[in-house]
Amino acid sequence: MLNTLIVGASGYAGAELVGYINRHPHMNITALTVSAQSNDAGKLISDLHPQLKGVVDLPLQPMSDISEFSGGVDVVFLATAHEVSHDLAPQFLAAGCVVFDLSGAFRVNDAAFYEKFYGFTHQHPEWLAQAAYGLAEWNGDAVKEANLIAVPGCYPTAAQLALKPLIDAGVLNLNQWPVINATSGVSGAGRKAAMSNSFCEVSLQPYGIFNHRHHPEITTHLGAEVIFTPHLGNFKRGILETITCRLNAGVTRARIAELYQQAYASKPLVRLYDAGVPALKGVEGLPFCDIGFAVDGEHLIIVAAEDNLLKGAAAQAVQCANIRFGYPETQSLL
Amino acid sequence: MLNTLIVGASGYAGAELVGYINRHPHMNITALTVSAQSNDAGKLISDLHPQLKGVVDLPLQPMSDISEFSGGVDVVFLATAHEVSHDLAPQFLAAGCVVFDLSGAFRVNDAAFYEKFYGFTHQHPEWLAQAAYGLAEWNGDAVKEANLIAVPGCYPTAAQLALKPLIDAGVLNLNQWPVINATSGVSGAGRKAAMSNSFCEVSLQPYGIFNHRHHPEITTHLGAEVIFTPHLGNFKRGILETITCRLNAGVTRARIAELYQQAYASKPLVRLYDAGVPALKGVEGLPFCDIGFAVDGEHLIIVAAEDNLLKGAAAQAVQCANIRFGYPETQSLL
Amino acid sequence: MLNTLIVGASGYAGAELVGYINRHPHMNITALTVSAQSNDAGKLISDLHPQLKGVVDLPLQPMSDISEFSGGVDVVFLATAHEVSHDLAPQFLAAGCVVFDLSGAFRVNDAAFYEKFYGFTHQHPEWLAQAAYGLAEWNGDAVKEANLIAVPGCYPTAAQLALKPLIDAGVLNLNQWPVINATSGVSGAGRKAAMSNSFCEVSLQPYGIFNHRHHPEITTHLGAEVIFTPHLGNFKRGILETITCRLNAGVTRARIAELYQQAYASKPLVRLYDAGVPALKGVEGLPFCDIGFAVDGEHLIIVAAEDNLLKGAAAQAVQCANIRFGYPETQSLL
Amino acid sequence: MLNTLIVGASGYAGAELVGYINRHPHMNITALTVSAQSNDAGKLISDLHPQLKGVVDLPLQPMSDISEFSGGVDVVFLATAHEVSHDLAPQFLAAGCVVFDLSGAFRVNDAAFYEKFYGFTHQHPEWLAQAAYGLAEWNGDAVKEANLIAVPGCYPTAAQLALKPLIDAGVLNLNQWPVINATSGVSGAGRKAAMSNSFCEVSLQPYGIFNHRHHPEITTHLGAEVIFTPHLGNFKRGILETITCRLNAGVTRARIAELYQQAYASKPLVRLYDAGVPALKGVEGLPFCDIGFAVDGEHLIIVAAEDNLLKGAAAQAVQCANIRFGYPETQSLL
Repeated sequence: MLNTLIVGASGYAGAELVGYINRHPHMNITALTVSAQSNDAGKLISDLHPQLKGVVDLPLQPMSDISEFSGGVDVVFLATAHEVSHDLAPQFLAAGCVVFDLSGAFRVNDAAFYEKFYGFTHQHPEWLAQAAYGLAEWNGDAVKEANLIAVPGCYPTAAQLALKPLIDAGVLNLNQWPVINATSGVSGAGRKAAMSNSFCEVSLQPYGIFNHRHHPEITTHLGAEVIFTPHLGNFKRGILETITCRLNAGVTRARIAELYQQAYASKPLVRLYDAGVPALKGVEGLPFCDIGFAVDGEHLIIVAAEDNLLKGAAAQAVQCANIRFGYPETQSLL
Repeated sequence: MLNTLIVGASGYAGAELVGYINRHPHMNITALTVSAQSNDAGKLISDLHPQLKGVVDLPLQPMSDISEFSGGVDVVFLATAHEVSHDLAPQFLAAGCVVFDLSGAFRVNDAAFYEKFYGFTHQHPEWLAQAAYGLAEWNGDAVKEANLIAVPGCYPTAAQLALKPLIDAGVLNLNQWPVINATSGVSGAGRKAAMSNSFCEVSLQPYGIFNHRHHPEITTHLGAEVIFTPHLGNFKRGILETITCRLNAGVTRARIAELYQQAYASKPLVRLYDAGVPALKGVEGLPFCDIGFAVDGEHLIIVAAEDNLLKGAAAQAVQCANIRFGYPETQSLL
Repeated sequence: MLNTLIVGASGYAGAELVGYINRHPHMNITALTVSAQSNDAGKLISDLHPQLKGVVDLPLQPMSDISEFSGGVDVVFLATAHEVSHDLAPQFLAAGCVVFDLSGAFRVNDAAFYEKFYGFTHQHPEWLAQAAYGLAEWNGDAVKEANLIAVPGCYPTAAQLALKPLIDAGVLNLNQWPVINATSGVSGAGRKAAMSNSFCEVSLQPYGIFNHRHHPEITTHLGAEVIFTPHLGNFKRGILETITCRLNAGVTRARIAELYQQAYASKPLVRLYDAGVPALKGVEGLPFCDIGFAVDGEHLIIVAAEDNLLKGAAAQAVQCANIRFGYPETQSLL
Repeated sequence: MLNTLIVGASGYAGAELVGYINRHPHMNITALTVSAQSNDAGKLISDLHPQLKGVVDLPLQPMSDISEFSGGVDVVFLATAHEVSHDLAPQFLAAGCVVFDLSGAFRVNDAAFYEKFYGFTHQHPEWLAQAAYGLAEWNGDAVKEANLIAVPGCYPTAAQLALKPLIDAGVLNLNQWPVINATSGVSGAGRKAAMSNSFCEVSLQPYGIFNHRHHPEITTHLGAEVIFTPHLGNFKRGILETITCRLNAGVTRARIAELYQQAYASKPLVRLYDAGVPALKGVEGLPFCDIGFAVDGEHLIIVAAEDNLLKGAAAQAVQCANIRFGYPETQSLL
């Protein structure tokens, strides 16, 4: 049994991690922590997330120093803000833990990226270099060897799963940048009091046009430019991405289908639609990324759906942990 | 033309007032104000409430002293917090304005009520005594004479409109207290960043059981005890109240219908259902309170619906202003 | 391994059954069937319910005669309309199957009940007499012995779990009938095209006032009268019931808490709130019924929440099957 | 006063027309009709649409022959299915009425279009040729002269208002087709019982990819190719379109802003965002189309929002009627 610490357990992705680890046969929860300044310190996780009542009633312990919690811990999940992960991950790594970071703090090996998109100067270039990018279906070999796994962002997960097989095979005409229109549930903004999250304020609307921090995460790992326009939707969870691409001449629907089959036929958490395209309801509360597409001449539209908190966060983190420690890839996820 | 000041215009009821007064043929907006400390000071009302864009693009002016705004003002609407209304109303009254207060600060002529349910000591017993309670269908005569009109709370408006004709006629067996189950949209909690209003946290649930401040407002003005259980619903606006009562022996369905007809046949903002009961959708965005009922032996169930921001706040305030100044009761409301 | 047939698998409760049985270690799905006239015949369950894609991709087989499917089947779940269950259950019982019926066809041992509330003449009084009413926390002994288990209705499950401990202990003043105000998600109306289910028509509203067929189911099994007012809510799944009762003189909050503890402390699918009351979000997608309450003098308000498709249907059916066959009560449910 | 007939008044756009015409100072409702086969025949409009209760309580009269209703009628609004409008419009025109058709029956002067996208053979080429396409901001001169006005589709209205000023000015690089991602509320599918409209089935999803009938309506009237991907959203009303374009070299943000100002500064129902982009909430229940945009190098993203039932249907129909008869363009709309 791996002793597991979940840091930042009070948030939406944190609560999903708690549920997954609680039922994992090879991992057990050592403690749940929140910032020492948090109003939630001392409360039960099930007070904040009533779905966990009677299932996991552990307290959210305030952590001011990792040494209070790192002893005997094998695995740490950081469901924390970027700056917090940036500071904590190296400490837990130094203490011998394997760290799965759900924030953006170690996703892109480029210090300038953090200056520009996250507003802080990265202090740990050595860990940036060593971190494995946990896009599980593609980077499993790196994940197996790493002690720091940077779990991808929610939007980038779906975008890359949809585009990577096609870009790698060279079937897209990249003179026309793929246009990614994505709509996310409000949980993507995190668990916090903010006017923009307020029930009466939420309304379908684009945001972060041309400057969302997930844009460079996508383009860096795809190795190709895209236009990425995220939208806030009036629902709690889930992401739907509609991606419009130009095909190179002669590329057929059958070729696209073949490339997706090659990439994902053996991948249990990507589900391919032979006909039609996915809807958000198919993935809510589930660890899958669903992909479907349509072709019309040289035009290709791909539709990818996932639960932003699961394949876009907690489920992919656990999937990476399963890969890292040699458990079945979907252990505790299905 | 009456010069009109709207204080606290940034909130949801405030924005509805702005829309109504803007199209009123006998009132014009002198200024919109917010607290001098508000982050919204200086913004346009239409920046906060985009439905008003191009319709009313006035700025929200910071008000630190009423003298900056009271000159030449005939009418003031206070869409402010209870404590703020408590302080401002006497000042505007002293400046000669007629004040319509949408808060609870002057609704119940009982100082102990404010200590217990609002947490402050009322300093203006003389105004408590003079304030007219603006339940428009019942207190029109008092409203016509008053300079301070306390516009009723959202829940109390529907509850009283539903129960008052029956209680006054003595047809209810009040040994069994009427049971009022009410569900309100999230806008009832006001426009603010709060975890309880957060999109992902909102879920159908009772709150304020046995101790909501609208309970004593209802019982005081009805002169009868009730059990009042408010719920938060997963929608933006509207209130539905389902009220279960015991009839005195021999009281028929026809008698109930007759009492409602007597009370409201000539009242344009109360709509009576001859058959069936109202749904929330019938009143969203409209100034009506809809009432229907069903009888089974000695059991009576009344269903009342209104838009909490309109008949439960802004529309009733304007209705009272129309009554006060002798305009048609529904002027600018329909 | 018990061979299991799910009849009427295309509906919302049916799909939940499919998920539960699919992961049950002691039961396996023999076939999924729908009416021979259904448009869904021949489709995959995962075409209708995309959350099952890649998990259970079995076809929905048209069944015109039970003999095509009953051979070798140990267990049958009927997620069918009342009349259909009424006809099919005796046939499957005659074929030696143990039948769990999710419809109302065998819930009340009173032929007049079916005439009045379901509009058909019951033809199987012998089975009405033998059927066990599957309110799992209370009737486990009967369930263990029965071959026909009538799984309770969604509203009656929560209502009875909330009221039965108190009524049995005699702490309620039943001269004042408990007032049950319940709000259900739209899935309670079943999976069908109907104007009343249409997205734009759904709006919070009571229905079936004084005449819902769940009313007599509740009162028969409780042995006490109640006033039951169901409402349609603007959400997909879940039921919240707010129940207002009168206590006998001298009954304290502590006594109520004690009675709930006695009834449910050892029951894994009822969760008791020591403080506060449940919200709908705590039970969505989960097999629990959550109960909380508040006392003010002689007034008691109980709040019960469940997922109408789970504890109110599919989960309770599987819970009964687990009890009937000696498996752990929550097998495959948690 | 113009005598006005509303045909197909039972639907969502029909009910909006009823509200607008009811408060129009120069038009009065002669009758509301539905198909003679409709279940709604004989009901009051306010039975179907409770928001109209006490406002317009007229019956929905069954119409089997236009002669029963056309006498003395000046204006006819057809809120009917395409085939019905195709048959009725010429009859009403022959009777001397001015016809505003909200269906697609006369929008594209190309018989092949109807064969391919609407599945019927158009029988009235002479009226196709004479019909004015009622995109009010652009075709006012034609509307003034026409007796048959084909009110544009909901998606095409927003798409054309967003793109037409830029395409006409030649600032877009049309080698890359503009990518229109649009999300509509469920009311766009009409008022009918259908599984796809069912509350529990609705979930964010694209549909009609590469073959929606609004696609050729857009391209025909714009004179340019686009990629149009409509989505069904989980809300009742409103359309948001996010349009991704390539600019010709050297075209600046200022130039785009200037073109929009030139096109719409004097148009009361198009609201331009100087900064930021519109959200759906800004247009719900309102007759506006809101437009905002962002530029990054040669990339342009335009966001357009409207209420699909208003600027996308009923409000634009009334706007056209106002133009046709010389009333203020926004009469009864604001």
